[in-house]
Amino acid sequence: MNSDEQQIRQLIDKWGRATAAGDLKTVLDLMADDAIFLTPGQPPMSKQAFAAAFKGFSGRARVESKSDVKEVHAVGDLAYCWSHISVVTTSLDTGERKERVGYTLTVFRKSPSGSWLLSRDANLLV
Amino acid sequence: MNSDEQQIRQLIDKWGRATAAGDLKTVLDLMADDAIFLTPGQPPMSKQAFAAAFKGFSGRARVESKSDVKEVHAVGDLAYCWSHISVVTTSLDTGERKERVGYTLTVFRKSPSGSWLLSRDANLLV
Repeated sequence: MNSDEQQIRQLIDKWGRATAAGDLKTVLDLMADDAIFLTPGQPPMSKQAFAAAFKGFSGRARVESKSDVKEVHAVGDLAYCWSHISVVTTSLDTGERKERVGYTLTVFRKSPSGSWLLSRDANLLV
Repeated sequence: MNSDEQQIRQLIDKWGRATAAGDLKTVLDLMADDAIFLTPGQPPMSKQAFAAAFKGFSGRARVESKSDVKEVHAVGDLAYCWSHISVVTTSLDTGERKERVGYTLTVFRKSPSGSWLLSRDANLLV
């Protein structure tokens, strides 16, 4: 595994930990300003819409995710990754627990400062 | 738009026309041998599984698809594209018509011969 692939795997780990901790700022710092999130049955979501959705969850549910990265490949400042993901959401009010599983295909771009950032994400979880 | 981006748009057009014509050979020639297709609620599909599914449809339904390509970006031999897609399937037996719409995020690789090939595809149609 080369250094770019290691950095992208570290980004994915950091993303999962920050999500579990409700740390929106860290998650936003890991994505490009023009990031786009694609999900089934919904219009494309911008970084601003992602932040609004994250805030909607925050304080109301605990979110635990596990990523099993199947492949990472980088060329120059462009990379992609696909993973199997499991996300367990537990309501802090009712204790109700929901699990969603499935695959993601994600595109990363290296910023001018040399950090990899999430750029385009297709989330197939059901 | 540079030449790589034009070639990828031409691949997408050719894919749609070949699918409508039931021309599996042409579709298979437009994808890498290790292509992987991700869809909601299903395990990842290989080129062989794609071909089997295509044959299952062939002769039983007419498939018409429209792609509205939102972005194509290529770096070296790696590229991605995301599109809004509409697929109308009409049963040749019953005339029953089903429409599925949604987004796709697709990764392309340039082969050693210089042709772009579909490599990884996330299909979010519902």
